[in-house]
Amino acid sequence: MTGDLFAYVDEHLPEFVADVVRLCRQPSISARGEGLTEMAQLVVNAMTALGIQAQALPTAGGPPVVYGEMAGDRPTTLLFYNHYDVQPPEPLELWTTPPFEPVVDGDKLRGRGVADNKGNLAARLAAIKTYLAVRGRLPLNVKFCVEGEEEVGSPHLAPFVEAHGERLKADACLWEGSGVNWQGQPTVILGAKGILYVELEARGAVRDVHSSLATVVPNPAWRLVWALSSLKDSQENILIPGFYDDVTPLSPQELEAVQAIPPDDQELKESLGLEKLVADVEGFQYIRRHLFEPTCTICGLVSGYTGEGAKTVLPSIARAKIDFRLVPEQRPQDIHQKLKRHLESQGFGDIAVSAVEGVNPARTPLNSPLVRVVVEAAQEVYRRPPVVYPTMAATGPMYLFTSASGGLGIPTASSGIEYPDCRMHAPDEHIRLQDFALGIKHLVAIMAHMAEEGRRD
Amino acid sequence: MTGDLFAYVDEHLPEFVADVVRLCRQPSISARGEGLTEMAQLVVNAMTALGIQAQALPTAGGPPVVYGEMAGDRPTTLLFYNHYDVQPPEPLELWTTPPFEPVVDGDKLRGRGVADNKGNLAARLAAIKTYLAVRGRLPLNVKFCVEGEEEVGSPHLAPFVEAHGERLKADACLWEGSGVNWQGQPTVILGAKGILYVELEARGAVRDVHSSLATVVPNPAWRLVWALSSLKDSQENILIPGFYDDVTPLSPQELEAVQAIPPDDQELKESLGLEKLVADVEGFQYIRRHLFEPTCTICGLVSGYTGEGAKTVLPSIARAKIDFRLVPEQRPQDIHQKLKRHLESQGFGDIAVSAVEGVNPARTPLNSPLVRVVVEAAQEVYRRPPVVYPTMAATGPMYLFTSASGGLGIPTASSGIEYPDCRMHAPDEHIRLQDFALGIKHLVAIMAHMAEEGRRD
Repeated sequence: MTGDLFAYVDEHLPEFVADVVRLCRQPSISARGEGLTEMAQLVVNAMTALGIQAQALPTAGGPPVVYGEMAGDRPTTLLFYNHYDVQPPEPLELWTTPPFEPVVDGDKLRGRGVADNKGNLAARLAAIKTYLAVRGRLPLNVKFCVEGEEEVGSPHLAPFVEAHGERLKADACLWEGSGVNWQGQPTVILGAKGILYVELEARGAVRDVHSSLATVVPNPAWRLVWALSSLKDSQENILIPGFYDDVTPLSPQELEAVQAIPPDDQELKESLGLEKLVADVEGFQYIRRHLFEPTCTICGLVSGYTGEGAKTVLPSIARAKIDFRLVPEQRPQDIHQKLKRHLESQGFGDIAVSAVEGVNPARTPLNSPLVRVVVEAAQEVYRRPPVVYPTMAATGPMYLFTSASGGLGIPTASSGIEYPDCRMHAPDEHIRLQDFALGIKHLVAIMAHMAEEGRRD
Repeated sequence: MTGDLFAYVDEHLPEFVADVVRLCRQPSISARGEGLTEMAQLVVNAMTALGIQAQALPTAGGPPVVYGEMAGDRPTTLLFYNHYDVQPPEPLELWTTPPFEPVVDGDKLRGRGVADNKGNLAARLAAIKTYLAVRGRLPLNVKFCVEGEEEVGSPHLAPFVEAHGERLKADACLWEGSGVNWQGQPTVILGAKGILYVELEARGAVRDVHSSLATVVPNPAWRLVWALSSLKDSQENILIPGFYDDVTPLSPQELEAVQAIPPDDQELKESLGLEKLVADVEGFQYIRRHLFEPTCTICGLVSGYTGEGAKTVLPSIARAKIDFRLVPEQRPQDIHQKLKRHLESQGFGDIAVSAVEGVNPARTPLNSPLVRVVVEAAQEVYRRPPVVYPTMAATGPMYLFTSASGGLGIPTASSGIEYPDCRMHAPDEHIRLQDFALGIKHLVAIMAHMAEEGRRD
């Protein structure tokens, strides 16, 4: 029975919200290396305050990873993966309140990181606090692996996981977050897309010149535009030779799971003010495309004069930031090579391509025992069956934990506090307090069910 | 004889340089509407100090135009066209010294506007000061028309010229500037290209979203790239239907003039660190292309995240600034319409196209009597024959003065203080003090020769 635990969560919610606020007041922007050491120490302190044995472990060249562990009644071990870094808050002018001054506004909490991912980390600490307060002990062993570079592709996590494989050993892993869909159903996510993030840079004259020289002086902005338009056509086909070679077809189980996911394309369109989606997808096709198609996205573009009014300038530099979301069995290194070869073959060998991050895709099988535990716990808390996603569309370094070849081979699923409009990575990131409470209870229930499973073994 | 006048110029050069510095210390950025009223008043004061009857005349919606006049010995009237506005100084970090704190550095004067166009205006005032100091009177009538919006396409000058046509009447006009080429030969310019400056804006979702949504959420950065790549191919052919319809072939006289211009393509390439120019042009072909070809130039491009590192964002807006330099008989309104029709026909009707400025091209015939006066004066001052350019590659509202249909029908040529590396519109704009002195003397000589011509009539 978990009724006493759930009651404690409801009663102590304001205290748990204050814990999120405390974590989110500290900027920790991995893209700029801001505030990461300070943030890691805050996380260690939050864990230590609960009696978790916590330390900030160094990485080879990156900010520390916070590792924590606490023994419980059963030998079963549950590992929590989270990250303490956040996305840059820009554009600042679109925030209703300052991003690093989190505030409760009605039934919501707003601020950078409240959803992605400090709120989820706080929910896990709150679940542990609840268990300890009500029962005096945890029902199973828990471990934490909280990194500081998730938002920049976890460049130092692979060697860390390899070096600390024994320490991180666990029977199951709960991934950084998830939450409820537009209909309020809890969602369980079993995979992540990979990513390749690159910067393209075209250079012309050694300095900006008067645009009347455009008759004779090469323009790097044009070269960048021509190079970019060779990557993807207006029908959204990615034109890099071999790009789709390693995309695997959906298994019958995956197809079945996709068909069970309620489409939220109408809600998405309404929330984003869009009349239609890419390729006019709707319903099942929308879900299938979103979860199983790789992408090629211009994330940023800049050249020349971008201020108010007219400046007749011929730029000397043009830059683009592009991400490719990858699906099994695509690999970032391979796509990076194919991209470079393609640009060279199209006559754009002068455009510099630098890889900023690369992460492999990951999947935990739909028939893993962990999936049953998380689904049953969700049913108990949310009072409705959860929706199981074979993968999310976003990226994380999940393959380091899940992959049997090159990873730790730990089955991994998600639980979290988010909802679809929480604006992760965007201005006015927020969570709903009701989702936060449910997310904590789901974690409590997962621990209870998993300890019970262990007892049955 | 002008020897006494030239001696005065040499003797008082530091004073004339101080006058340029005074004008350039006042920022006057028309693209942002900064400091224009203050600047107009500074110009009125500088004229009044010489005894020129000067006033800041209002325009319908823009900053004032400074009009000045002073009677001389002969009824012949010479009109000076200049402008008191400057280009934005950005990027600031590339300036050796602050743009609005002009400084003499060795044999150069550096600061925003020292070349384009306050230094040229100051040279004209210095020539008048010289005449008055040495001779007590001017040899002919002079008038000034100094506007404050040249750098944004002179949007309020056409109605001003129409309203003040009688007041601006003159026998000849000296355009804002010019100078010497890489070989030190003075240059006389008889025309200007036109311009159409537009902004393109593509919009997607109502806000930036996480780039994992790129599977289904349209990306305005991609739409802008695809639209731009439909405007010009990588061989520099402008693809807008009808764009070249009104481009006139070179006349035999123009061809002859182009062949007499010493090509400076080697110097340009060296100065800009380029291995080759657009379409691999060299020598005569370089001059022909530069003076007689229209262009389509990306001046600015911006979308999404442009800071350091990786931000996985799908942008909601993408913008481009584009200028088209136009040759006779192209017209900005016509090209604007053709551009919009082209984008619509290519499926980019959702991309907003707003015209920021439009200026017609202009030409004074090679056989105009004014050309002889300016050439003879240049020969006297620079001790070498000038190079006559049928047109410059840059733009100004010259057609308002030169055009017989819709303009004042005044023959117009240039004289000035610039040299090819003076970095107009770019960081570290500067002039050489020797060119400044020669430019003042050229103006003195032009006034003398023109008064003499008038006497001969």
